[in-house]
Amino acid sequence: MEVKYPEDSKTILTDLVLPSETNPLNNLFGGELLARMDRAASIAARRHSRRIVVTASVNHVAFNKAIPLGSVVTVEAKVTRNFKTSMEIFLDVWVEDRESGRRSKANEAIYTFVAVDDTGNPVPVPKLEPQTKLEKERYDAALRRKQLSLVLAGKMKPKDATELKALFENDK
Amino acid sequence: MEVKYPEDSKTILTDLVLPSETNPLNNLFGGELLARMDRAASIAARRHSRRIVVTASVNHVAFNKAIPLGSVVTVEAKVTRNFKTSMEIFLDVWVEDRESGRRSKANEAIYTFVAVDDTGNPVPVPKLEPQTKLEKERYDAALRRKQLSLVLAGKMKPKDATELKALFENDK
Amino acid sequence: MEVKYPEDSKTILTDLVLPSETNPLNNLFGGELLARMDRAASIAARRHSRRIVVTASVNHVAFNKAIPLGSVVTVEAKVTRNFKTSMEIFLDVWVEDRESGRRSKANEAIYTFVAVDDTGNPVPVPKLEPQTKLEKERYDAALRRKQLSLVLAGKMKPKDATELKALFENDK
Amino acid sequence: MEVKYPEDSKTILTDLVLPSETNPLNNLFGGELLARMDRAASIAARRHSRRIVVTASVNHVAFNKAIPLGSVVTVEAKVTRNFKTSMEIFLDVWVEDRESGRRSKANEAIYTFVAVDDTGNPVPVPKLEPQTKLEKERYDAALRRKQLSLVLAGKMKPKDATELKALFENDK
Amino acid sequence: MEVKYPEDSKTILTDLVLPSETNPLNNLFGGELLARMDRAASIAARRHSRRIVVTASVNHVAFNKAIPLGSVVTVEAKVTRNFKTSMEIFLDVWVEDRESGRRSKANEAIYTFVAVDDTGNPVPVPKLEPQTKLEKERYDAALRRKQLSLVLAGKMKPKDATELKALFENDK
Amino acid sequence: MEVKYPEDSKTILTDLVLPSETNPLNNLFGGELLARMDRAASIAARRHSRRIVVTASVNHVAFNKAIPLGSVVTVEAKVTRNFKTSMEIFLDVWVEDRESGRRSKANEAIYTFVAVDDTGNPVPVPKLEPQTKLEKERYDAALRRKQLSLVLAGKMKPKDATELKALFENDK
Repeated sequence: MEVKYPEDSKTILTDLVLPSETNPLNNLFGGELLARMDRAASIAARRHSRRIVVTASVNHVAFNKAIPLGSVVTVEAKVTRNFKTSMEIFLDVWVEDRESGRRSKANEAIYTFVAVDDTGNPVPVPKLEPQTKLEKERYDAALRRKQLSLVLAGKMKPKDATELKALFENDK
Repeated sequence: MEVKYPEDSKTILTDLVLPSETNPLNNLFGGELLARMDRAASIAARRHSRRIVVTASVNHVAFNKAIPLGSVVTVEAKVTRNFKTSMEIFLDVWVEDRESGRRSKANEAIYTFVAVDDTGNPVPVPKLEPQTKLEKERYDAALRRKQLSLVLAGKMKPKDATELKALFENDK
Repeated sequence: MEVKYPEDSKTILTDLVLPSETNPLNNLFGGELLARMDRAASIAARRHSRRIVVTASVNHVAFNKAIPLGSVVTVEAKVTRNFKTSMEIFLDVWVEDRESGRRSKANEAIYTFVAVDDTGNPVPVPKLEPQTKLEKERYDAALRRKQLSLVLAGKMKPKDATELKALFENDK
Repeated sequence: MEVKYPEDSKTILTDLVLPSETNPLNNLFGGELLARMDRAASIAARRHSRRIVVTASVNHVAFNKAIPLGSVVTVEAKVTRNFKTSMEIFLDVWVEDRESGRRSKANEAIYTFVAVDDTGNPVPVPKLEPQTKLEKERYDAALRRKQLSLVLAGKMKPKDATELKALFENDK
Repeated sequence: MEVKYPEDSKTILTDLVLPSETNPLNNLFGGELLARMDRAASIAARRHSRRIVVTASVNHVAFNKAIPLGSVVTVEAKVTRNFKTSMEIFLDVWVEDRESGRRSKANEAIYTFVAVDDTGNPVPVPKLEPQTKLEKERYDAALRRKQLSLVLAGKMKPKDATELKALFENDK
Repeated sequence: MEVKYPEDSKTILTDLVLPSETNPLNNLFGGELLARMDRAASIAARRHSRRIVVTASVNHVAFNKAIPLGSVVTVEAKVTRNFKTSMEIFLDVWVEDRESGRRSKANEAIYTFVAVDDTGNPVPVPKLEPQTKLEKERYDAALRRKQLSLVLAGKMKPKDATELKALFENDK
């Protein structure tokens, strides 16, 4: 089976915060950023799978930092791990100060996409091989997140979520 | 301190899936639904707090069901638990079959909002008292989700996440 | 023939006034509210008829109250009377004060929709039976409005508009 | 007081029907056309009054003809009569066949706008003097429509609506 | 072959500058005006050719004048010259002062469109015969612009661009 | 004066072609691509100048290749030359085939932006030093384009456009 690297799916979407996307405090609406991240993540998933892809889930997304009207926002998306027909995509969002040019992290998010054929049925995706230290850490964490999803959805027993269980047991 | 009930914040947003909101399979884009849920959740949070509110985080959202162009989609949002300055909002999304009129569950999502004053600083929100069985279950689960967030963000030690730990220990 | 009640078609669309929808006074554009009411009315018409529906006419709509940016607006639509292939829909629009939570009536509107098949030809719709006092009043008024439309369009002679004529004669 | 002619306020808005503006039958949404007519009417009202103007009401609008995706639509707006601080605007909507170039009438609508100052208070508008036969007919009909509005809103007694009453009495 | 006049394709698009179309200085975004001019130009090209038309190129467009939020903007488009399957369209953009009603030129632009059949293949367009002095000047200039395009794209040798060469030689 | 390199302003905007952005042939509207390129170019100009920037002109843009609905489009913008208060930005647009992953050039465009202060007055921008062979070629060509603009606008005599004149004379 074909092997791909996180770099192959790297997607950069740099755009402005437009007036129609702001809330009463003149900052980017959470919902607009979610939609923008969804588009970037779908492109990364498509670059990995070369298939039509559909959003399967959005994991925890924290909005740590308000992003004001007129800001330059960069969304960077990369596939972090493949499962049989699905892919986890990690998104880093950066905001750029106009005057200093300094970039600061605005938030992170994790989306999962499924690859489908023209009739909407799931199809297998290439295997991902992480390369850098950060890519490897995110690859390992992806499995824990997958187990957590399954446990919370009642589709896996907590005792079988070996990766996740370790987290609590090591801490005793 | 003022007490409020989940019903007080109940928000219903019934609208069509418009042509500009669909993906290549002619279904509602995940990102558009995320934006629509964000608006409904922000209204529920505002009804509970009577304050300006900003999105703090989006918890796990699963997209179980494709929603075709032209569908009638109903997003129902209710506050499930208050914390000091934040509120967890639960969203149920329903799709309606035009011919039979039958509603079916399309997905669920959980958003967290923070109440802020005009300068963007967090302010306390009223206490929520759940009434129905479902409201009480969701109220309890909200604490586990809060602990889980803190653990995953490295802001709480797993051993202190009492509610969450029980989940794994009871299962041994 | 199937009978339906106004409650069966009740549609609630609660949403924010977004920055892209405001006029130079920072209030909701009349045109945007007309479009939003059209979507809510079309859903109500669809719930009554379970058919594709198209806007046939908009009766008098008065904009009595400016609706500022950031407001929470609730549009409530209900079928008030069925004719052979068309339905009259009544819309009540409410605005909510963020601080007090108080709702006040912003405006009312009446739209007419026609049910059509896939080729766009009109098809019969179920009979509506009003239940409450307000529903009955609106049901009766719908006939007067229908006659008024026909008279103004030159499709009915004033002397045959019995319901409407009474309005002027009783007043002598 | 300044006098103006209908031609002074004539406004032409020719634009395409875009994919984001269509219903499930691939025709222009009624609501989108209402919004487009509102913008054209507001420009006509502004040209007559040279003031900020806000939508006061929409009178009967009939959608006689479906307007397919990709059509060229021309909205023509002209002030038909001034009242103290308000203006009635008549809209003619034309659709153009791409192959033959032939224009056909799609619908008509009547909007009323109020001129306001920067704080939103109504201000007087110039007197309108109709010139052509059609302009004079529409000018006269505007008074009947005004009386009809007032009667329906319960702000004028039917017996005082002299213009309107004549319509029913002459017909006996 | 059919002959047409510039007046046959004249297209007027008068519309407001909406809040969602402005930059941080509260003026109309260059990109929004480019999109609006593209729509008006495509209608003019369609009126000349009665065909589906697609944008082939945009020639020099100068933005000389900022256009503030709430302005009334009039885009006037007319075909200036036909080539075998393409048409050059000239756009004049006017802004209107609300208080004085005075119109001033905001900018000019030149677009080229190609007429195509349903499969996207270029098809011949009618011959254009300029009538007024301005139409004739623009008709002549269109050939120089065409040659300039070809030279800059490396598809014509400078020495063969007779019209253009004259510009530099006469000046010696 | 501060010196900057083209790489400092490099801006990548990768995004999908959405259903609301397509023409009757289901390809991206020319006008939408113009707007998207304007946003990317404005970010590059801002990164070079760290100022508010406004579109001054759009030079020749050729649309060589239709871009179908659902495509992944990458707009890359880089400053090619600075003038006193203005910057020329070169845009390369790439389209990506979903199945093969192959990128092909869709079109090129050149925009000019001016840096302004908060009141809209032009301010000087840093000097640009091209590094690579391509950057140097585009830097030189920018001067010819500048002269061409001035000549066409009647602000420079053809005989003074030394760079441009050479183009025609060398060819004799």
